[in-house]
Amino acid sequence: MHRTKVRVASDVLDANTTIANANRADFDRAGVRVVNLMGAPGAGKTSLLERVLIGGLRDFRAGVLEGDIAGSLDADRLSALHVPVTQLNTSPGFGGECHLDANMVRSALGEIDLPAIDLLVIENVGNLVCPAEFRVGEDARAMVSSVTEGEDKPLKYPLMFRTCDLVVVNKIDLLEHLDFSLDRFLENLERVSPGVRHMLVSARTGEGVGALKGWLEGVAGRESERA
Amino acid sequence: MHRTKVRVASDVLDANTTIANANRADFDRAGVRVVNLMGAPGAGKTSLLERVLIGGLRDFRAGVLEGDIAGSLDADRLSALHVPVTQLNTSPGFGGECHLDANMVRSALGEIDLPAIDLLVIENVGNLVCPAEFRVGEDARAMVSSVTEGEDKPLKYPLMFRTCDLVVVNKIDLLEHLDFSLDRFLENLERVSPGVRHMLVSARTGEGVGALKGWLEGVAGRESERA
Repeated sequence: MHRTKVRVASDVLDANTTIANANRADFDRAGVRVVNLMGAPGAGKTSLLERVLIGGLRDFRAGVLEGDIAGSLDADRLSALHVPVTQLNTSPGFGGECHLDANMVRSALGEIDLPAIDLLVIENVGNLVCPAEFRVGEDARAMVSSVTEGEDKPLKYPLMFRTCDLVVVNKIDLLEHLDFSLDRFLENLERVSPGVRHMLVSARTGEGVGALKGWLEGVAGRESERA
Repeated sequence: MHRTKVRVASDVLDANTTIANANRADFDRAGVRVVNLMGAPGAGKTSLLERVLIGGLRDFRAGVLEGDIAGSLDADRLSALHVPVTQLNTSPGFGGECHLDANMVRSALGEIDLPAIDLLVIENVGNLVCPAEFRVGEDARAMVSSVTEGEDKPLKYPLMFRTCDLVVVNKIDLLEHLDFSLDRFLENLERVSPGVRHMLVSARTGEGVGALKGWLEGVAGRESERA
């Protein structure tokens, strides 16, 4: 008599996690580290990338996957820097999704020349809510928060601030013109995500951009956790 | 012989539209006009409402329904102005939704003293994507777009700009400190939403806030389309 084999589906991953892990395995095989870059619309994600990628990273080759509802404005800006850029629009096929998920990123993998790069920066759709809920296979998460958005943002969008490894505080050149207390913002950030790393930058003046470049190079140089 | 009666479900509304219509009927019965106020995180929606509601509207009583992922920071700010404010959090019951839909608004209707107000402003969750996709029973839609977010936003989030009756361009006090061409922004806006009304304001200095107040009073004084 044969016993029926029973597979108890107790620890089945949700579909997004399964696909994120598959993406991660592909990135690892190609030796590519991946950063998921998030932030509100207009926080300055693309402008910071432009600043960072001018002249390239030290010792590492970067590529960008641009997530947008529609159009290729940001991808066009970055392509001008001679960085390999792939545009991923969430509108036609996915109905205007407000975030990238692992499956959308997977659908773009065939378009990315992974052997040609060491670091892939995935610029997510401008949104402080849903992108935080979907792992896409990244090694690290960074978000850009502009000082023009106000001190209360960590308290209002806690998941986003909590799930990031780095919070890039942008547009600090405008601080003197705003009613914005950097101390209070950092208190709120610490309350939501104790000990999280942050850096102060200005995409406009270039202040602090070197530190961000250094952080990206650090991620690019990481050993794979799977290796 | 009886013929079988067949109901061909060709024009069945989606659930959100059905509930939005039910909300609308309730608002109409109470003689309340409703504005759905949208915009990116940190665009200045709450600050503008504070400015507008200080001293109240002329001839009309306003109330606010505050949509947030978590917390009641904005509601607390507005309550200080002695305006009836209801907080609606999308996190506990709805899993951190990035927008308000008609059903969430309906769930809050019992908490709002409709006979005590003439105009309900629904401040949506900070997001330029999904809120545009869900009618909640409003008479008019307005969005706040801050000049710090960049000129390209109408092109990148076209549905939001296209479905609004009014685009409030905020933080114009910062224009001189930004690389932002108002002309180019307005060109992009016109391209996406030809003829849409816009106004230039600063919640910080109060410039243009009178025009926004006038617009809200105009909506509050509208005859119901159903009356």
